[in-house]
Amino acid sequence: MIAPERLSAERARQLDAADPLTAYRERFVITDPDLIYLDGNSLGRLPRATLAVLTDVIRLQWGERLVRSWGEGWFEAANRIGGKIGRLLGAADGEIVLADSTSVNLFKLVSAALAAQPGRHTILTDDLNFPSDLYILQGIAQRAGSEYRIRVVPSSDGINGPAEAITAALDEDTALVTLSHTVFKSGYTYDMAAVTQAAHRAGALTLWDLSHSAGSVPVALNGAAADLAVGCTYKYLNGGPGAPAFLYVRRDLQAALPNPISGWIGQREPFDFAPDYAPAAGIQHFLSGTPPILSLAAVEPGVDLLLEAGMAQLRERSIRLSEYFIDLWESQLAPLGFRLQSPRDPAWRGSHVSIGHDDAWRINLALIHDMKVLPDFRRPDNIRIGIAPLYNTFTDLHQAVARMRQVVVGRHYERHDGAATKVT
Amino acid sequence: MIAPERLSAERARQLDAADPLTAYRERFVITDPDLIYLDGNSLGRLPRATLAVLTDVIRLQWGERLVRSWGEGWFEAANRIGGKIGRLLGAADGEIVLADSTSVNLFKLVSAALAAQPGRHTILTDDLNFPSDLYILQGIAQRAGSEYRIRVVPSSDGINGPAEAITAALDEDTALVTLSHTVFKSGYTYDMAAVTQAAHRAGALTLWDLSHSAGSVPVALNGAAADLAVGCTYKYLNGGPGAPAFLYVRRDLQAALPNPISGWIGQREPFDFAPDYAPAAGIQHFLSGTPPILSLAAVEPGVDLLLEAGMAQLRERSIRLSEYFIDLWESQLAPLGFRLQSPRDPAWRGSHVSIGHDDAWRINLALIHDMKVLPDFRRPDNIRIGIAPLYNTFTDLHQAVARMRQVVVGRHYERHDGAATKVT
Repeated sequence: MIAPERLSAERARQLDAADPLTAYRERFVITDPDLIYLDGNSLGRLPRATLAVLTDVIRLQWGERLVRSWGEGWFEAANRIGGKIGRLLGAADGEIVLADSTSVNLFKLVSAALAAQPGRHTILTDDLNFPSDLYILQGIAQRAGSEYRIRVVPSSDGINGPAEAITAALDEDTALVTLSHTVFKSGYTYDMAAVTQAAHRAGALTLWDLSHSAGSVPVALNGAAADLAVGCTYKYLNGGPGAPAFLYVRRDLQAALPNPISGWIGQREPFDFAPDYAPAAGIQHFLSGTPPILSLAAVEPGVDLLLEAGMAQLRERSIRLSEYFIDLWESQLAPLGFRLQSPRDPAWRGSHVSIGHDDAWRINLALIHDMKVLPDFRRPDNIRIGIAPLYNTFTDLHQAVARMRQVVVGRHYERHDGAATKVT
Repeated sequence: MIAPERLSAERARQLDAADPLTAYRERFVITDPDLIYLDGNSLGRLPRATLAVLTDVIRLQWGERLVRSWGEGWFEAANRIGGKIGRLLGAADGEIVLADSTSVNLFKLVSAALAAQPGRHTILTDDLNFPSDLYILQGIAQRAGSEYRIRVVPSSDGINGPAEAITAALDEDTALVTLSHTVFKSGYTYDMAAVTQAAHRAGALTLWDLSHSAGSVPVALNGAAADLAVGCTYKYLNGGPGAPAFLYVRRDLQAALPNPISGWIGQREPFDFAPDYAPAAGIQHFLSGTPPILSLAAVEPGVDLLLEAGMAQLRERSIRLSEYFIDLWESQLAPLGFRLQSPRDPAWRGSHVSIGHDDAWRINLALIHDMKVLPDFRRPDNIRIGIAPLYNTFTDLHQAVARMRQVVVGRHYERHDGAATKVT
């Protein structure tokens, strides 16, 4: 039994006051201090610095410098910001670039990986992967004339990744293993180095979706010898809604992998307007079309904040916040029928905690509409508590749990039965 | 010989004063009235209304409403704005949507068209098409195991599209004819209905790149029975740098064409998180990943301006401006060695005029760096004069020609020999 004073509101305030990282919350635009935002793993908050960057991009770069801005930074932005994301993810300069959406990047890299693995026909994944990632794989495998099949390894409990079963499923037909590094429902985080090593022993390549890992857990792409990765920038990187995604290709693989969407930005000399495509050297040839500059520019300040605070420090804070929330769950929510649907051991967990409840859907609606708490909901029964260590506080979590209790004890959620609201 | 008074600065001012559309110039952010911007066919100017929209999207929708904004307009934006672009291009609601880049959309629609044309293996295009479009076709045709070949029909003069030779090249092996409707160098504009009719007689589909047509010439996609189209929004639509592109699929074709990049936004019920992809009905399934909302939202005000002014009126103004420029060329630039490298008849020309000169590259640099004139340059010898009827004026063109004469007569451009500046 946890001592009650360890879970008091006063104690939450003390924990916040004692942590120097709490100050980073002030670096974000927060218009309503009473709103408890626990969905930064879906859409990160707006950094104050982003306002200044966007004003400059819109008024000065577009409005005044006009087309000249392509030569004054726009063309370099995808690589420059990609390089900074590389510092968060343990990749070298020239191994990560911003482009397109996560889905399009996944399509490009899976297609490229398969082309580089002749004679191998199996794509290995698990049933904890993003459905959106599975859809892209299905599109590739179900295309007319495709010689590829997808093998989806099931998780035994819906929470923990089936790492051993994946390793056991590897064989000489496995072209590619592709997994969400941190899975979207439970927050389980794979041991990237171990899975990659096993894949390499079998001659397979690995492709990691880092959408729920980038900015939330330390990632060592080079250290793990990972081959390929993709990820979005609008969750813990705070890049803004639908901001361009990133893609990673380990340097020694770059020349061997063809980009199926061979567009002009990936051309060796795009301004020669030569009639025949010749891929640019390095990561550049994984670019396809003209990047959306406003959305692209918005990515940089959020990444800068993470670099300034330091991933190791943020991870440490994320674990303390998550463990605090789980303590609260254990003493105050479990008795009300809430289940922990994330790994208990923080070593195997990203920065969100999923809790289940038989009435989760209605509870979630009541939280949003009556209680000014924004978590998110994933079918059938998951309420995801996204903990962004740059701006979420111990007090946030304390108040969120108090409001969740109010909803269930007060049966607020019955009023929301049948109300349909879609929140990503 | 054109009477000199018809080409005086005073006459230019009179022409501007007499045209009610001149007032639309005030709807754009113009910080330096002395800069003559003739590159709106590369990057359109910033509409004033876009500033207000972006402030709302950034501060209110992202900063304050956060993830809730997906349910408050973000998901619908690609279709809503696509519908407005449809009104400019003669397409019905639900036939055009904003997504990705022109290159990615071209990849999707070419792949889809080929899948729908079994037994046909030829993609027909011309050598006036964007190199970037040819690159995408090459990527598809050169992929391992591809059964497709590209046939590039040459233009006889580099100016006029080889419409007759394309018609003659159509046969039972032609899967797809894909062309730039208005070609990027000379500004030649194809007769969409005639080419489409010939293609259909041969059993081929058509795919038009409308990047240089949208917002500059009247387009009747439905009227021409066109099958597919793509185009960018950052030229005459003034959507901002790298703004999301559009794609068009004629309604009766939508169900038959599979999107190879089968992403979650194109899934029937994206929030069910079902493990198996099932395409959404209609145009929706040609979407793939999460759209870049800031860049997407910036597209709408520019499209609204075009709808307000009216494409017929803008086309009429564009022709008057272009004819005026060609008159100026004939009397004042041709004697200095400038050649007209666009069709002389406005019926076959979009809204830019290309002029060639043996020293075009250096003249262009001198114009940019010494003369505050921004045209653009396309190898080997093309200076493109982009005429955006929403904001370019007769006075712009008069002054531009005067400054071009100054550059050549005064040999300003020799100072810029060797200076390398990239402008798209």
